[in-house]
Amino acid sequence: MQDHANSLLGSGQEVNFSRADALRREVCSSTELSFLMEAHDGLSAAIAQRAGFKGLWASGLSIACSLGYRDANEASWSHLVDAVERIVDSSQLPVLVDGDGGFGNFNNARLLARKLCERGVAGIALEDSCFPKLNSFVGNRHPLADVDEFCGRLRAVKDTVANELVLVARIEALIAGHGMHEAIARAHAYREAGADAILIHSRSSSADEILSFADAWQNRLPVVIVPTKYYRTPTCEYRRVDISTVIWANHSMRAAAAAMRRVCGRIFAEQSVATIEPDITPLEDLFELFSYDELAEAEARYLHPNKPPH
Amino acid sequence: MQDHANSLLGSGQEVNFSRADALRREVCSSTELSFLMEAHDGLSAAIAQRAGFKGLWASGLSIACSLGYRDANEASWSHLVDAVERIVDSSQLPVLVDGDGGFGNFNNARLLARKLCERGVAGIALEDSCFPKLNSFVGNRHPLADVDEFCGRLRAVKDTVANELVLVARIEALIAGHGMHEAIARAHAYREAGADAILIHSRSSSADEILSFADAWQNRLPVVIVPTKYYRTPTCEYRRVDISTVIWANHSMRAAAAAMRRVCGRIFAEQSVATIEPDITPLEDLFELFSYDELAEAEARYLHPNKPPH
Amino acid sequence: MQDHANSLLGSGQEVNFSRADALRREVCSSTELSFLMEAHDGLSAAIAQRAGFKGLWASGLSIACSLGYRDANEASWSHLVDAVERIVDSSQLPVLVDGDGGFGNFNNARLLARKLCERGVAGIALEDSCFPKLNSFVGNRHPLADVDEFCGRLRAVKDTVANELVLVARIEALIAGHGMHEAIARAHAYREAGADAILIHSRSSSADEILSFADAWQNRLPVVIVPTKYYRTPTCEYRRVDISTVIWANHSMRAAAAAMRRVCGRIFAEQSVATIEPDITPLEDLFELFSYDELAEAEARYLHPNKPPH
Amino acid sequence: MQDHANSLLGSGQEVNFSRADALRREVCSSTELSFLMEAHDGLSAAIAQRAGFKGLWASGLSIACSLGYRDANEASWSHLVDAVERIVDSSQLPVLVDGDGGFGNFNNARLLARKLCERGVAGIALEDSCFPKLNSFVGNRHPLADVDEFCGRLRAVKDTVANELVLVARIEALIAGHGMHEAIARAHAYREAGADAILIHSRSSSADEILSFADAWQNRLPVVIVPTKYYRTPTCEYRRVDISTVIWANHSMRAAAAAMRRVCGRIFAEQSVATIEPDITPLEDLFELFSYDELAEAEARYLHPNKPPH
Repeated sequence: MQDHANSLLGSGQEVNFSRADALRREVCSSTELSFLMEAHDGLSAAIAQRAGFKGLWASGLSIACSLGYRDANEASWSHLVDAVERIVDSSQLPVLVDGDGGFGNFNNARLLARKLCERGVAGIALEDSCFPKLNSFVGNRHPLADVDEFCGRLRAVKDTVANELVLVARIEALIAGHGMHEAIARAHAYREAGADAILIHSRSSSADEILSFADAWQNRLPVVIVPTKYYRTPTCEYRRVDISTVIWANHSMRAAAAAMRRVCGRIFAEQSVATIEPDITPLEDLFELFSYDELAEAEARYLHPNKPPH
Repeated sequence: MQDHANSLLGSGQEVNFSRADALRREVCSSTELSFLMEAHDGLSAAIAQRAGFKGLWASGLSIACSLGYRDANEASWSHLVDAVERIVDSSQLPVLVDGDGGFGNFNNARLLARKLCERGVAGIALEDSCFPKLNSFVGNRHPLADVDEFCGRLRAVKDTVANELVLVARIEALIAGHGMHEAIARAHAYREAGADAILIHSRSSSADEILSFADAWQNRLPVVIVPTKYYRTPTCEYRRVDISTVIWANHSMRAAAAAMRRVCGRIFAEQSVATIEPDITPLEDLFELFSYDELAEAEARYLHPNKPPH
Repeated sequence: MQDHANSLLGSGQEVNFSRADALRREVCSSTELSFLMEAHDGLSAAIAQRAGFKGLWASGLSIACSLGYRDANEASWSHLVDAVERIVDSSQLPVLVDGDGGFGNFNNARLLARKLCERGVAGIALEDSCFPKLNSFVGNRHPLADVDEFCGRLRAVKDTVANELVLVARIEALIAGHGMHEAIARAHAYREAGADAILIHSRSSSADEILSFADAWQNRLPVVIVPTKYYRTPTCEYRRVDISTVIWANHSMRAAAAAMRRVCGRIFAEQSVATIEPDITPLEDLFELFSYDELAEAEARYLHPNKPPH
Repeated sequence: MQDHANSLLGSGQEVNFSRADALRREVCSSTELSFLMEAHDGLSAAIAQRAGFKGLWASGLSIACSLGYRDANEASWSHLVDAVERIVDSSQLPVLVDGDGGFGNFNNARLLARKLCERGVAGIALEDSCFPKLNSFVGNRHPLADVDEFCGRLRAVKDTVANELVLVARIEALIAGHGMHEAIARAHAYREAGADAILIHSRSSSADEILSFADAWQNRLPVVIVPTKYYRTPTCEYRRVDISTVIWANHSMRAAAAAMRRVCGRIFAEQSVATIEPDITPLEDLFELFSYDELAEAEARYLHPNKPPH
């Protein structure tokens, strides 16, 4: 297959515009529910594409875990850009990047957006938190950014990247315990500031909050949700209230973690990998996933052009 | 727990010496068989430590897959250093780094070794391949380096890092189809050049090659093996011939890949994560693995020292 | 002024195509002699643009010196990409990058070209040396690459970046002491392989070699030269033989080095900067060069939109 | 000479402790006035060492200018770490790093300090500004950090790096217009929090402010100053009030900028470098500065050990 080689070696310029457009179609069309799958590195990106997903979520939490940092802006904004570059290069899918709060003020946010744009991402989600953030599911300290200040970040990003990136404004008001009124008020303000879509976040174990939000919001902009804590809600509920996009925000990383824990435990106990082999991906599949055959063909073409193919 | 915080914030200077010594004890003591578990990022490193392993193998193949590069020196030497830094920071274990052939000549190899040393690794394995290398399990083009030239790389590294790093010389002669005589001759030369241990690599599905090597070599230096292709061999066989160290070279990454493929497939098909939750690591476990509680405690100590603890 | 802010925050996508075209016009139009000025970091790039130059040369030697590495492929290919990104971001000029030999084989070369393209460069020069290279002016070990192998690198790059980058083939045959016949033969081969221009390098203190080359070559492709050692030759000589482009390859870095040496020496001796001030750039000029006023305006616009301007 | 090679290839572990001790002796001994020279890259570091300086200041402003970023925390904390690594590797001098405010809260600050420590720096200066900062000489928006919050940053860094780094607390109170009383109060608080020295910053064109501070402070901790704006003050004034250390904070970068501007202007006008050559550093001097001879000797030793030396 040519997927990886195309991505790595193909035309980045054209790819980017089509990726942003592709994400726009997925996220901003409310007629059909879309799904974005989390990726945190090249491997998870390539696998998500193979599974059939039409877009990726470059998760801040998952990338932090992968790097061994905590999801509290320990990794720098350029660490994020580097990680995202590997995700973008490893698939042809549009990538929506979890940009946290933008890593500072409006100036940091627009610089991040510009750099992500150059790396070929399709969209950026910015949340109304303060720097440094703390993961929304941890503890109770989640001070919200001032509305005007955060709108300034959104406007700065919009003025910088225009339509090259989809701009998703993420509302942490429910996480911070401010209630629905505040959430809706912020959604209006962020729409005014130029957001292309609203991500309403919740850490309730039921979807009631986000369903109420969707009812009240009436799709003035497409709504994006992250059913990590309220994972039991049937997807038809989201269709019923015309949610635009569902992000499966950390499930590849958590699947990887569970598998590595299991396999490490077994290998440690058994002092052998003999029984492990059937449960792990064969090397040949990985070589296929990353188009090692393209390398062999290219070698024949560029390194030994006069030799008959082997 | 304090593991992660200790590692991230503790004294790098002292850690490094004790890590190199720890690896020396593991790898170079032939009285007991040691095991190194593959890691390719911070998450896999932290998990391997929790499973009980006493040392890590920073695998070139696994890191390449994680980054979405091919194991053909596509990632730069500084990409490798960056990835290894995350591995080192995410555990307290000694890390033996797969340094491929050193990314060029003696000068590139010693520079790589110096930089890895500064990042806190415990050892480096250098293989007698040419730059750029190709993964040992792919295709049939694996030209061996000239013995003298490769010995120059080993000597340059040894003169640079002295005893700060364990230096493992990896022999690709069997991979390249040169036979046992060549392998043994190279082992002698690499020992003369200053190697602390010999890694004999094989892609045979049986361990006969490496067992023969061990018989002939007579432990003039400790022997390290990588039972990826000959995974069925019982570990007692390695003990019988006094192998020093077994590297489980890519099994965490392959476990992760298999799990991500499975979970992505299910989520894509079911359009839901409801049934996935029991099969993936809870977020709370990840927060515990990376010591988010240390962050909360530190916040109480440094950010709100005068408030009563919550 | 808006130069820096435009560059940093403007549309990278459109910029890149126009930059490649701009370089094509400069380098490949033989009707007028063009000049590229060396840059090695953001500061030197911004200054060269202000001086009036129409294009930049991202010099391998100068970047290495700036980083404190030796010009022997000590810096990794990704270090180069990072340095070039700062150069590109700090001006609106087309940047021709000194890609050395491509940092390995055809696969490394095309990966480097792809990444440089994403960073917004306008062209790449590849030289027919082996990896790792050594600076052309140092010592006598400069083994030439096999012609076919190097043509493979050129073809691989051309197939990867097509017309997004100008591809300059640099001939080291005269440096390596192979004579004019070899140089001309290689020029023909590199033209066949897809080069857009030929850089003929010489370390003679007279321009006779490169003038002879130009006479013999008859502009089958535009000719680029680097008058570092034969700096005394009047520029009209280059016009006479229809040279396309002259690269002032390291003069900003060497000017900076001389000035820093002088100023460091004086400050050390005088234990004061009182007499130094007239000889160094005022901070205000640097703030103007990097558009600090844009930051103040943006702050007024995004951070305090409701306040009257100060 | 061996300077560069020693630094690049020598023992990083031992170097670091001696560098921190060396800086401690320079900065914290009030019996003799010490001087730190600014460096922003490898080249400027190597040159400052040659000029005789005993320590370096890795200036945030100069590094930002060199990268083409604005001194407003546009460059990420890891960009700073990367730049500082080149400075450290290019000399044997102790390096005091301008860490701005620590790039966030106490957690970001201690992570930065840990990483700088691993790169071999000797000290870190943290200023009591908010993130993102703006250069002290630009505009009038310089909100001071809350004293307790900033002390938390200092304590967190101290608890992390203990005596591996010299910790300098930089007071921006005079820059922010808060007056001497506030400056002195903060100096006491920062001393309590564990600072090893106090950097009192001023943008007055006279040294009166800092001399008053020194008078009032009575050397409870060593005092560090940055005479950028009050450059005319004779150095004996600093000795008179027992200042510990003077930082020449940006003069190499400004000397480089002036020289590059001059030389670019001349080359652009003259379309020739013929008259420039006497005013710029010869390549041979740069090859000597970075020990290219060590590379030739090492090649003889490691690459061609059996050949007679040339």
